[in-house]
Order: sequence, then C-alpha cells, then structure tokens
Amino acid sequence: MAHTAEILSVGTELLLGSIVNSDAQMISRELSALGINVYYHTVVGDNPGRLEQAVNTAKGRADIIITTGGLGPTCDDLTKQTLARCFGKKLVFDPRSMARIEDYFLRMRRTLTENNRQQAYLPEGCVIFENDWGTAPGCAFEAEGVRVVMLPGPPSECLPMFRERAVPYLKGLSEGVILSRSLRIFGTGESMVESRLRERMNAMTNPTLAPYAKEGEVELRITAKADTPEQAAALLDPVEAGLRSEFGAMVYGVDVGSLEEVVQSLLEEKGLTLSCAESCTGGLTAKRMTDLPGASRVFRGGVVSYTDEVKRAALGVPAALLEEHGAVSAPVAKAMAEGVRALTGSDLAVSTTGVAGPGPDDRGNPVGLVYVALAAPEGTLVRERYLSGTRGRIRTSAASTALDLVRQYLQGLLVSGEA
Amino acid sequence: MAHTAEILSVGTELLLGSIVNSDAQMISRELSALGINVYYHTVVGDNPGRLEQAVNTAKGRADIIITTGGLGPTCDDLTKQTLARCFGKKLVFDPRSMARIEDYFLRMRRTLTENNRQQAYLPEGCVIFENDWGTAPGCAFEAEGVRVVMLPGPPSECLPMFRERAVPYLKGLSEGVILSRSLRIFGTGESMVESRLRERMNAMTNPTLAPYAKEGEVELRITAKADTPEQAAALLDPVEAGLRSEFGAMVYGVDVGSLEEVVQSLLEEKGLTLSCAESCTGGLTAKRMTDLPGASRVFRGGVVSYTDEVKRAALGVPAALLEEHGAVSAPVAKAMAEGVRALTGSDLAVSTTGVAGPGPDDRGNPVGLVYVALAAPEGTLVRERYLSGTRGRIRTSAASTALDLVRQYLQGLLVSGEA
Repeated sequence: MAHTAEILSVGTELLLGSIVNSDAQMISRELSALGINVYYHTVVGDNPGRLEQAVNTAKGRADIIITTGGLGPTCDDLTKQTLARCFGKKLVFDPRSMARIEDYFLRMRRTLTENNRQQAYLPEGCVIFENDWGTAPGCAFEAEGVRVVMLPGPPSECLPMFRERAVPYLKGLSEGVILSRSLRIFGTGESMVESRLRERMNAMTNPTLAPYAKEGEVELRITAKADTPEQAAALLDPVEAGLRSEFGAMVYGVDVGSLEEVVQSLLEEKGLTLSCAESCTGGLTAKRMTDLPGASRVFRGGVVSYTDEVKRAALGVPAALLEEHGAVSAPVAKAMAEGVRALTGSDLAVSTTGVAGPGPDDRGNPVGLVYVALAAPEGTLVRERYLSGTRGRIRTSAASTALDLVRQYLQGLLVSGEA
Repeated sequence: MAHTAEILSVGTELLLGSIVNSDAQMISRELSALGINVYYHTVVGDNPGRLEQAVNTAKGRADIIITTGGLGPTCDDLTKQTLARCFGKKLVFDPRSMARIEDYFLRMRRTLTENNRQQAYLPEGCVIFENDWGTAPGCAFEAEGVRVVMLPGPPSECLPMFRERAVPYLKGLSEGVILSRSLRIFGTGESMVESRLRERMNAMTNPTLAPYAKEGEVELRITAKADTPEQAAALLDPVEAGLRSEFGAMVYGVDVGSLEEVVQSLLEEKGLTLSCAESCTGGLTAKRMTDLPGASRVFRGGVVSYTDEVKRAALGVPAALLEEHGAVSAPVAKAMAEGVRALTGSDLAVSTTGVAGPGPDDRGNPVGLVYVALAAPEGTLVRERYLSGTRGRIRTSAASTALDLVRQYLQGLLVSGEA
C-alpha cells in the first residue's frame, strides 16, 4: 500500500505571514523522492485546541504525520505535548537529551532556564532525533497505525533534521522510487502547451505529465513511479523524446537551472564571449548572466542605456536613427547590439529595447512591445515581440527572449537571414 | 464577532514541493492588517475529491474562505467548479469576462483555445474580480454564512488581485484594526539588532516589536492593535521614535518598498540623476534602479564592466591603474564611478568592484572584499567592505552598499572628506 503523508506546520508566525512555509516545501520535495505521497499541508498557530483538531483530522486521512515547529521553550513545547496527548502517550524525562541541552548552553555561554528542561521530556517509547543544529530534539513514534515525526521549525534545523534523522527512519516505509524530469520551454504560453498536450496528459497514469508556468516560461514535468531508478528512467525516456519532437527548438534544456545556465555552458563549449546592451531590461540581462560563478569566462559586460544620450555616447547609436525611428524600434535594437559588440570586443552581443510599462512611451508604443537583437560575426538579427504581464514580468520575458536568441544561435537553430 | 479566515491553496506543485506557498504568506499578512484572524492554511492538490473535503472542513471553522490557484485552463477550473458545487451554485457564462479574455489574447497575438472559454463561466450571483494581470478572473460570493473569495495562483496575479479586488470586498468585515510599521535598516546584522533590543522586545505586548532579516537588511516591524487607526498610530509613534534614535542613519526608511525606492524618490525630490558602473554586481544595481516605474526620470544608465578591457574602453579607467592596483581596488572603484559619470552626464554615479566568489580573484583578494565609490560634484568617496555569504548575497549586499551610499549623500549624512 502506498503511504500518505500530511505535513502539519505549527506556528502563529506562519498564519501572520511573517514567514513563508519553506519547511513544508522542502519536506514535500524530499518525500516525493522517497515515493511517499503528500495529499495535504495544514498550518495552525500556537494553539493547543486547534492543533489537536488538526491532528485528529490528519489521523483520519494520512498514515504519516510530519510536524514542523512548536518544539522548544518559546512555545511550551506545544507540538510534543499535543501530539502525545492525541495519541495517548505520556512524556518521560530523557537524561541523555538533558545532558546534550546542558552541553549546548555551556558552549553558547547562555544561561539554562527552567523551560529549557522541558525539551528533555519526550513521548514514551519514541525514537529520539538528536538535534546537532539547535537545541530542541525531534522524535518519532508509531501509534494507532500512524507514524508521527516531529521536527523543529527553523529551516536551518528542520532541513538537516529531516535529511539526517527522519529520512533514515522513513526509508523502510517507501516502496519503489519516484523520478521526475523537467523539460524547460521558452517561447510559448502555458495554456498553449496545455491545449496541445491535454488529451495525452489525461490518458497518462505512469509516468504523469504536468505543465507549470514560471516567470514567463513553461516547465513540463514528467514523473514516473517504479521499483528501481532504472525502471523509472525507462518509463521517462520515451515521453521525453515525444515532447522534444513536439516542442522542438522551444525546449531549451532538461533538468537545468535556467536559460542563462544553458547559455553560459554553450558559450564555454564553443569558446565564445557575449555582451549586452539594455534599455527596457535595465541591467537584468547582465545580472542574470553574472549570477552564475564562472561568468567572467564568457561574459564581457554591457551597457545599460536608459536614455538616448547614453545610447549615442556609449553605444554609438546614430542620433538620426533615434530621431527617425525612436528608441523602441528594430533599427535602434540592431545599432545597440552592434555598438556593444564593437565596444567590448565580444563575439556575440544582444540588445533589448522596449516598453516595460506601466504606461506607453512618448511615441505611443504600447506596453509590452519589445525589440531584441543579436549581433554575430555573420550579421545582426532583430526580433519583435509583444510581451504581457506586469512591468517585472515584461522585463523578465524580454531578457529571456534575448538570452534564448543567443541559445538558439549557439545551437545552430537560427535560419540564416531570418528576422 | 471577529471574523476567521482560512486560506485554501490548490495545487499539486505545492504538495510536490516545486513551489513554496508564498500566496498564503502574502494573504495572511494583508488579512492581519485588516484585523481578520487566520487560524488555518490548508494545501491540497489538483484533486476534486480532496478539495471538496477540505472545503467542507473549512466551512465548519471559518467564515471567510480564500482560495488560491486551480483557476484557469490547465486545471479545468477545478477550484471554481468544486467551490460552486460545495455551496450549491451553478456556473453561468459571463459575456463580459469572455470579451476580456478574447481581448487579452488578441493583444498578445495568441490563439484562443476552447479551454480558455471555461474561464468565462463563473458562479451565479458572484462578484467578478477582473484580472488585469493575467487571464483567469477571480470571484467572490456569500453562501451558508461563509464568504468565499477565489484568486489565481501565480503570485504575480494573486498579490495584485488580492490587494485591488479582494481587499475592497473584505474591508466592510473587519473589526478593530491591526496596524504595522516597518523600519528598514541597512548596515548592521540581525543578531546585533536583536541583542540590542531583546529585553525591550520581551517586555512589550501592545505594540509588539519583531526583527526580520531579509537580503542582508533588517526589518523591524512594530505592530499595534486598537479600535481605530488613530489609536493604533498613537501606540506606534513613540516606539518608532525610540528605534530611530537607537539606529540613527542606519534607518533608511519606514514602510518603504526598498532602498532603491528611497533613492529614486530622493533623486526626484532634488532633481538629480544617477548612473552606475558595475563589476562584481554585474548589472544588479542598474536592474534594481530600473525595477521601479519612473526610473527613467532619475536613472541615466550604466556600464557593466566585467573585464579590464571594458573598464578601459567604456569607462576610461587607465590601464596603468588596473595594472598597479588590480581591478578590485579603491583607485579603480574611484575611476569607474568618475568614468561612468562623465560618460552619461549624470549628477551622481556609483561603482562596485569586488570578489563575489565562489573563489578569490587572480590577485588573491578574498571572497567578499568589495569597493564601492560615489562620484558627486564635490568629489569622489570610496568605501571598502568585507561582505559575507553566498555569491548571490555578496552581490546583493554590494549593490545595497552602493545604493545606501547614494541615499546617505542625498540625505546629507556623509561627512565631507570622509572615506
């Protein structure tokens, strides 16, 4: 039988929105790799009555309950007290945990208070998870057919406690493996991808296929369940091949971090350098290219030309061109890319100029109109795009369009003379 | 009676841990400002049966249910279908929503598919929330004593839809107010702030005071609960004044979006312009200055000089200076700032040069060593900093150090001749 886990996060700070529930995200990701289904996340505050209600609901629909938070002195060890009560267990003093807590306070030169002693009381018969990353120990027990795992809340303790303590405890429970592969697609919308794949997706059970929209891109995740990693991979392969032939050049990578990562490795592979001239993206393209370590091997730099004067002075864009066509135009995009290529001596250069919003520009160009150019030894190519969304989204999509043009060029996907 | 809200987030990608539930955090924060209690967050996957179960549980313990996600074509409008069923409502076709969706696709030059039409079906008698940030409209209705609000999942749509559409709808419901004020501090660490304020924080009940670390900055949030906004403000005022005198020039703003927002409004106020020359920050400073609408009124542009050649060619940094001191040095930072100021004709210019990591540079300069310069009509000032953290964190802190130097200059906080 497949196991079903529920993550129960305890903390008023989550309900006030002071922090985001990154513990639940991290644990969910790791559980899916173990082949354990997660059907619910529940968040409650530091309130014994509501926590008890949430535990009772969880007992009825999951056979693994993982709690985060509510351990330790600032909340009177709420989670441990409540979970023990819900499952009819007593808390018993554990001298070994007490010794560890005393030792921690000594090392930190802090004074041990009475409520710190509470942390050494643990549910009878539990497995104690020693906390090498903080003071409150975690623990696990089995009762009424449910496995209960309790972890501290701070992500810097929760993550290592889950990986080093809970995973070995849970490993015996998982059956088979779940493997995922992510195809990253740029150049088409989520609803278009979805409508092309809808029938296929609905017909699939193992592997499954799901599209996710992120930052103007689409991620297609194929997930297979099998007894071994090899069998799971064999299930993934034909689906991946089918999607690659369906989306062709729009697939920029599989299990990659980002478009800029793909561009960086292609440049490195071919021994080429890049620079950029940016208007509407205002430095974002350069910022993304330099986010990655090793950027200096392939990226020379760029110019952010936010005014016509800078376009003329730094990039040599002719004043007549700016006057005739305006800054948001194909000829200016071309001149910007060629100008920065000459200035930096890079092999390739991209440029962006457009209207990021919130309003149209002086010439009445609409929000979202963007020109992107790529200057290469063979010549310069310009693309016109109508991008949608907020100012931030338009800037991100414009930078992605520029980076994707470089990617397609480096992969030999551009038809010569194309515009 | 105080109102109780439950946030119900729909999306398998949350249960797989592919994304973090930032919608729930954002909505919680805003609800608390409205004086509406949040007692539970629940997350379910794209599964009608489990969503129905979660809705029925929520109906029994909350009088406001806010859903995020599961609207739109990729999930068959699961949330709208299920919520309508749970509350015995039919979905009816709304021609106005259809016209908006058609218009959106026309503008984006994308093809409307049959599943996009689904989005124009909405629960009978609901208030429709027009979506100016994407395609799927949101909506709200009241039934069985519960107010149901449905919002799209992508944070770039959920946030503005909540603020612009749901808040006006919910405003009539709140009793009493919770007011928060955020002091933004740059230039000292969270643990230092925390240790200076610890005793005071522990002694406070209304208002409360809490520090949050974010992106190398510290946010101090004061929160007061009262019957009227005026009473709440009167509770906040003396605490704010105390903190301002405690942290002095390090407080760069109260209830402001970011350091760059403060810099932009100060520049605008004084009618001055800025440009920047970046090495280790690689475009991030320019990107942050142009994130904001209206940036073109005060920001002229910049140069990302990721190689010595570009520092010479674009910024006029003398080759001899680069050879003698290396790119990561005070004289080069100074020459970069002065170079970009001359190139763009801006009133002020900042520069960054340093080692973002992961390893030391060719000259053995350690990771985290950064020089930041400010060129102004009165002369140029350079600061040396040792920053810590990952490559991303060092880049962010370096850009913040540059922007904060501009802020301090504009607020008259720099002692003349200081370095």
